[in-house]
Amino acid sequence: MLPNCTDDKPPVQVNISLSLINILDVDERVQILKSSMWVRWHWKDCRLQWDPKQYDDVTVIHLGRERVWIPDITLYDSASVMDFLDVIQYQRPVIKYTGHLVFGFPSIISSTCYINILNFPYDLQRCRLKFSSWSYDNKFLDVSNSSPTGDLSAYVANNEWSLEGFTVERSSVNYTTSSFPDVTFFVEIRRHPLHIYINLLLPCIVISLIGVFMFLLPPESGERISLGITSLLSMVVFSMNIASSLPATNATVPHITKYFSCSIILVACSAVCTILIMRLHHTSDSIRLPRWVKRVIIECIGSVILLGQSCQYQKV
Amino acid sequence: MLPNCTDDKPPVQVNISLSLINILDVDERVQILKSSMWVRWHWKDCRLQWDPKQYDDVTVIHLGRERVWIPDITLYDSASVMDFLDVIQYQRPVIKYTGHLVFGFPSIISSTCYINILNFPYDLQRCRLKFSSWSYDNKFLDVSNSSPTGDLSAYVANNEWSLEGFTVERSSVNYTTSSFPDVTFFVEIRRHPLHIYINLLLPCIVISLIGVFMFLLPPESGERISLGITSLLSMVVFSMNIASSLPATNATVPHITKYFSCSIILVACSAVCTILIMRLHHTSDSIRLPRWVKRVIIECIGSVILLGQSCQYQKV
Amino acid sequence: MLPNCTDDKPPVQVNISLSLINILDVDERVQILKSSMWVRWHWKDCRLQWDPKQYDDVTVIHLGRERVWIPDITLYDSASVMDFLDVIQYQRPVIKYTGHLVFGFPSIISSTCYINILNFPYDLQRCRLKFSSWSYDNKFLDVSNSSPTGDLSAYVANNEWSLEGFTVERSSVNYTTSSFPDVTFFVEIRRHPLHIYINLLLPCIVISLIGVFMFLLPPESGERISLGITSLLSMVVFSMNIASSLPATNATVPHITKYFSCSIILVACSAVCTILIMRLHHTSDSIRLPRWVKRVIIECIGSVILLGQSCQYQKV
Amino acid sequence: MLPNCTDDKPPVQVNISLSLINILDVDERVQILKSSMWVRWHWKDCRLQWDPKQYDDVTVIHLGRERVWIPDITLYDSASVMDFLDVIQYQRPVIKYTGHLVFGFPSIISSTCYINILNFPYDLQRCRLKFSSWSYDNKFLDVSNSSPTGDLSAYVANNEWSLEGFTVERSSVNYTTSSFPDVTFFVEIRRHPLHIYINLLLPCIVISLIGVFMFLLPPESGERISLGITSLLSMVVFSMNIASSLPATNATVPHITKYFSCSIILVACSAVCTILIMRLHHTSDSIRLPRWVKRVIIECIGSVILLGQSCQYQKV
Amino acid sequence: MLPNCTDDKPPVQVNISLSLINILDVDERVQILKSSMWVRWHWKDCRLQWDPKQYDDVTVIHLGRERVWIPDITLYDSASVMDFLDVIQYQRPVIKYTGHLVFGFPSIISSTCYINILNFPYDLQRCRLKFSSWSYDNKFLDVSNSSPTGDLSAYVANNEWSLEGFTVERSSVNYTTSSFPDVTFFVEIRRHPLHIYINLLLPCIVISLIGVFMFLLPPESGERISLGITSLLSMVVFSMNIASSLPATNATVPHITKYFSCSIILVACSAVCTILIMRLHHTSDSIRLPRWVKRVIIECIGSVILLGQSCQYQKV
Repeated sequence: MLPNCTDDKPPVQVNISLSLINILDVDERVQILKSSMWVRWHWKDCRLQWDPKQYDDVTVIHLGRERVWIPDITLYDSASVMDFLDVIQYQRPVIKYTGHLVFGFPSIISSTCYINILNFPYDLQRCRLKFSSWSYDNKFLDVSNSSPTGDLSAYVANNEWSLEGFTVERSSVNYTTSSFPDVTFFVEIRRHPLHIYINLLLPCIVISLIGVFMFLLPPESGERISLGITSLLSMVVFSMNIASSLPATNATVPHITKYFSCSIILVACSAVCTILIMRLHHTSDSIRLPRWVKRVIIECIGSVILLGQSCQYQKV
Repeated sequence: MLPNCTDDKPPVQVNISLSLINILDVDERVQILKSSMWVRWHWKDCRLQWDPKQYDDVTVIHLGRERVWIPDITLYDSASVMDFLDVIQYQRPVIKYTGHLVFGFPSIISSTCYINILNFPYDLQRCRLKFSSWSYDNKFLDVSNSSPTGDLSAYVANNEWSLEGFTVERSSVNYTTSSFPDVTFFVEIRRHPLHIYINLLLPCIVISLIGVFMFLLPPESGERISLGITSLLSMVVFSMNIASSLPATNATVPHITKYFSCSIILVACSAVCTILIMRLHHTSDSIRLPRWVKRVIIECIGSVILLGQSCQYQKV
Repeated sequence: MLPNCTDDKPPVQVNISLSLINILDVDERVQILKSSMWVRWHWKDCRLQWDPKQYDDVTVIHLGRERVWIPDITLYDSASVMDFLDVIQYQRPVIKYTGHLVFGFPSIISSTCYINILNFPYDLQRCRLKFSSWSYDNKFLDVSNSSPTGDLSAYVANNEWSLEGFTVERSSVNYTTSSFPDVTFFVEIRRHPLHIYINLLLPCIVISLIGVFMFLLPPESGERISLGITSLLSMVVFSMNIASSLPATNATVPHITKYFSCSIILVACSAVCTILIMRLHHTSDSIRLPRWVKRVIIECIGSVILLGQSCQYQKV
Repeated sequence: MLPNCTDDKPPVQVNISLSLINILDVDERVQILKSSMWVRWHWKDCRLQWDPKQYDDVTVIHLGRERVWIPDITLYDSASVMDFLDVIQYQRPVIKYTGHLVFGFPSIISSTCYINILNFPYDLQRCRLKFSSWSYDNKFLDVSNSSPTGDLSAYVANNEWSLEGFTVERSSVNYTTSSFPDVTFFVEIRRHPLHIYINLLLPCIVISLIGVFMFLLPPESGERISLGITSLLSMVVFSMNIASSLPATNATVPHITKYFSCSIILVACSAVCTILIMRLHHTSDSIRLPRWVKRVIIECIGSVILLGQSCQYQKV
Repeated sequence: MLPNCTDDKPPVQVNISLSLINILDVDERVQILKSSMWVRWHWKDCRLQWDPKQYDDVTVIHLGRERVWIPDITLYDSASVMDFLDVIQYQRPVIKYTGHLVFGFPSIISSTCYINILNFPYDLQRCRLKFSSWSYDNKFLDVSNSSPTGDLSAYVANNEWSLEGFTVERSSVNYTTSSFPDVTFFVEIRRHPLHIYINLLLPCIVISLIGVFMFLLPPESGERISLGITSLLSMVVFSMNIASSLPATNATVPHITKYFSCSIILVACSAVCTILIMRLHHTSDSIRLPRWVKRVIIECIGSVILLGQSCQYQKV
């Protein structure tokens, strides 16, 4: 039975507050945020009022969960429905003599969170935690937030993600005959990119640079191609390494993936160029370029890219 | 006891509806679809009717699950039987004064889904979710779908898979003495191939091309074979990488596997050719081809593939 | 209490039938078969008989599990005891007015299965599923199978394994004072080897062949040894790859492991030979073979393996 | 109801003791300590007193958990809330005739633990285990520790971590109207670095040294660059290997990561230098350095780094 | 209440027997033994005696677990407390008319086991399974073993480990005022090393040998160093491969790790030697060794290691 205090039966007002304790894990690939939260629901049940003077000055009691009415608030973004249901079973609400109940519990929450990786590793994620009654509409139960932001008083900072915001909104989902009010928390977190810089970008840039210096190697040195291929494979391995830890999105290709793809294509082109140069270098002089090709290259292109001196060398 | 309203005991009509919220994961290897669904069953129980005027205008109540009859609808394609049973335990059906019950619950469903990977990464998967009573046949319980398609009003798009359809069919499995009606939902999803292109096919094609350019390298350059072997090993690694994420099917070999296998064989052949060429190149002139072999090669084959000029070179 | 119908208390006859729905996974390393099964137990309980005419023509009822006696049939080969126990809790037996009960439930069964990998990937596995009462011996409870084979009417074919047989046997384990009858099902499955061919054997054979062609390379080409070492390492990686997915057996070394070990030794020998040849090739002529060694090699061995021409070359 | 013995209702004194049995796992990446603990709570409930003489000399009884009041002590640093709640369900408190209760249970505790990896592998971790009542404040329930340190009498040493301390503190979290006393245990563990030395640092230093010896190779030997690149890639692989097992921290970059990053940059620089040297070595004499550059290098820099003799060689 | 039969209240005698069915897994890294066991507890409860003649010749009944007193025997070495507690909930003890109870259940036991890897892969592990009452001391409950060894009648041999012994000891842990008797089983298992030989040692020895033959290569062949580096990296990969599957112990460094570390250092030294030799080989004659160095090397050291002939060669 709903805890209605008056005969006109207003909806039960359930106040929802949430304390973020810890961000345990952000799994980019399956797009799940795992966090440690303290959930608290406050409401009033007039049937649970008493006069403390008559009852030995007892002002607060703790009853078993099955003895009182508990709202069926559900986390709509849960990625593990049972976690939430199980932990509720063992909790006891705190009941004041005025009929106010507090039902709070610690919880490890796994929630789905759309991970936008366009700007990886500079990404800012915004994860939704929507709490609403599962079966009572707004004629029976209304939810509200206790403060404009979530509670961060017990928050322990995460190493990998910095918390940018923990806001709360009260909104409503309207159906034809009824509407379901909800309280929605938004956890905004920004990735610390330093770890990515050191462990992923630094080696990658180093390898790219080596791939550039490849062109300084003399063609008669046999190392030129193996250096190019090694750079290429390293780039591919790095690219696959990053891809395996990011979600397989379609709409947004992260900039870092574009960078890697371009790098791979560039290094591949330079490897092909090297092969062509070695082909020319080893070709006997009996196969000559037509005179007009030479003129075009040396006079037109050469004057553009100032090929003068190295061109002398190439002809030797 | 079955909730029969009349003495002729017609089968109880249970209406099944399903809302797809999220496709959480498609594991191609073990062929399991993990999705977030809202399940709703509607039926009528005449024993749970009352006159609201007599009961203080209460039109809707929520009773504990153990107080009323609940149909034993089972997901026949479940890959994790307990998930479904556990989550049902904690839900409370909503009962209207007319005797109509609604039993709905959010659920993370793991269902087996035959993954057809012939056209990977262009594959379209069709996953079945068959709901039917476990122990009541059609003389006792009948199921029906509420609409010709599943409910997508709360669907949140997935990054990796686009939803192509979410249809529903009512069919029946007939045994000798009884038949079991069922409501079967079909989730049709199509893979976004962009992610595969960038992270798997692009590097692979780049490496294949490098393997082709290998033939441009002069034989006296020692790099030719190491380049071929590197290409070959890279192809093998890519092939094993893809194979490990696809189911080990027998009936259908995916086209992409065929492509990789052919690439491997081709690159291997070109490596062998290179070895043979280097053998010829280094062989001293004292071992000569018989005159007729030369003639056959140069005059017959040469004229076909226009070998003229490079043949000159080969003879030097 | 046991459901004895007569005063002489014969053992309760429990009929066990099993429907194989799906083979979900065969984990060769930890030797576990994961399958989706429908289990059905039939028995008679005289205390649950009634006259349908007196009870409003009700011929079948569904009672909660805790209201009736349920046999404690246990899967003796279970690799996850709780899976089976949990799923039983939520099921309701179907009771006919004659006193016959049917207790059936869908189940995901993880059972230990001795994996014989001698003939991998041509292996045929035979997994046992032994059902027997845990605490009632044959004086109290007797089990029997309903048909000579398990039920395959709802079987959905697996991609990786083809079902060769699904037989059932009734046997008995005898102790000094009592004996426990059991019904044992055998799932026989044969691996589809095509997937192994394409993804594991094809690259491996290709690499072995390249290792053979190594000998065609001229010794003065520096590539000969790096090619040999690359082949060797690739063989080792393939071998470790297969080994990691097979159980670490002692009694039976699979033929494929023997093949890989021999290949590794052969490629290693050929690499060593190459090193020796290069040593000889680069050695200055001042260190000469003794005359009698030459004679032995050229005249004795040479005539056997027709070394004539290439021997000329070696001396140049 | 709270077990108040007198009318002035002092807070219930709950004594908390903890025995560390085993450190099962320290997962640096997700920052979780998994340990095997024995938890014991002692308190007094006056309602559970009796006179043993009247009751057949029974001085101790064991009652089911649901029959008596149990304090809702919660592990605030738990990383798996259900583990703790589940195991409590099955335990029976021991009740003495004086009204003293002991509620103890073995538990596998997963607790979050901030891992400071600055000094890895010489790191000393300090993991907090805070026990406090969840819903009773200090007016109702007070906690205390039984001894100044945790109990180590049954501790079994861990292979990887040595226990440096297991202290306990009693503190209090104060809110505006109430305060929650807590008993906090600190597990201090120090990593045994020998395993890291042998398996991670030894190979890494060996590879770095090889990268240094690279400069001894003559420039005309083609191996110089491939050796440098191999060293570079090995360093990168080692660096990624370590990074994957450490948490992605921002505030503190571990010294070992700094060392690896510097090594990578150094080896990369030496590879680039090698490329430049080979460039110079192969450049034909027709392109000469300006006279003043030579003078600067040889006379100024050369005199500083004593370039005399090798400079002679470079000019040849 | 304890099942005391007489007024002097002797401790309840609980007889513990254990049948080992299967060794499912030995995880060396986290040091956990996973085995399939049948646990059986026997004791006498005088309150559960009856005269079969009065009760229709019923001599044995099965009661629900919650109806009778069950000893709180706990596995002290459990690595997963809930596994044991859960499976007990569903079992029914068998009660004889004499008051003797048998409480048996199949169980998958995960127990911590100190893994001594000094002699890997020749290691013999001894895993303890200590059963004792959790809250009853020896004044209330006494445990005993039924036979000097554990029951192996239903044991199915493991592929990877051979069972060397399954002994049982009865001992006691004494505290100041009370003592807790326990029954401790020891599972002794010996690893089959054949699998390690073939898949880990064979390739490793092959690669070491190749690293030795490196010295036979002529210095002017550029392959010498790349061969050395390849051997070195292969050794490192093998070493890391083994290290990742063994626990990170400090006290005992396994012999195989020492072997690998020495091999790495040796191969590294040989690579450095090769670099030095190449340096000398390529150095122009203008830089000469001082006369006295030559004399020392050739006359003193040379005469020791019989350097005669190859010394000649080195000077050419």
